[in-house]
Amino acid sequence: MEPTHIEHIGIAVNSLEQAIPFYEKVMGLKCYNVEEVADQKVRTAFFRVGQTKIELLESTDPEGPIGKFIEKKGEGIHHIAFAVKGIENKLREAESKGVRLIDTTPRKGAEGLDIAFIHPRSAFGVLTELCEDKSDE
Amino acid sequence: MEPTHIEHIGIAVNSLEQAIPFYEKVMGLKCYNVEEVADQKVRTAFFRVGQTKIELLESTDPEGPIGKFIEKKGEGIHHIAFAVKGIENKLREAESKGVRLIDTTPRKGAEGLDIAFIHPRSAFGVLTELCEDKSDE
Repeated sequence: MEPTHIEHIGIAVNSLEQAIPFYEKVMGLKCYNVEEVADQKVRTAFFRVGQTKIELLESTDPEGPIGKFIEKKGEGIHHIAFAVKGIENKLREAESKGVRLIDTTPRKGAEGLDIAFIHPRSAFGVLTELCEDKSDE
Repeated sequence: MEPTHIEHIGIAVNSLEQAIPFYEKVMGLKCYNVEEVADQKVRTAFFRVGQTKIELLESTDPEGPIGKFIEKKGEGIHHIAFAVKGIENKLREAESKGVRLIDTTPRKGAEGLDIAFIHPRSAFGVLTELCEDKSDE
């Protein structure tokens, strides 16, 4: 089944405090939530743009995934998240097609979504997230 | 005025022919258009996901922007495009706030949109596109 929309775009930044004013004052968006995801060693700030959220990611630990990403590549776009229905089935289907998964079963992400990542090596360099909001059901 | 939605996400790939099957067979999207943008030295393939398009970009010239991007960073997410109304005003507004623009006036992009880029140095590492579909008016 095809994804319904782009749920969010994850962007790695050095500092939420520095980056939030760009999205608010220049882009005209509103930060509606700042949340710490301890498991991922990040603080996140969210903005809505139509169906999609911009999710700024600030590392809380240099050894966490965003800390390492910024050390290697600098600030920039980190991942794209596709909203799907039936995430477990999508993962099994992808696996059966030889796709390399980072998460073979969904885990809890920011805002309570069920999330799983496809490895960028299987997605032409793009860290690709599938996510499902089961509170919709 | 705030952007209405994410118009597209641009992804740099070595080969459309290799990357399209991932988006079609694994992600379940449909490529509805392949177009050459001679000005940008790219061939593009488009997929719809809700309000947003995935735009795969294959370089037609190693000296073009996508050729250089891939040489430096490898395949991956290249830019995010925000759909706006009144692109000229948005550019003047951004400039007045000290934002560095790549395009100080809009030019024609893929699918006939008016587009302009904000420099990633002013956008925390993200190559940020503003675009407007004036055929809507």
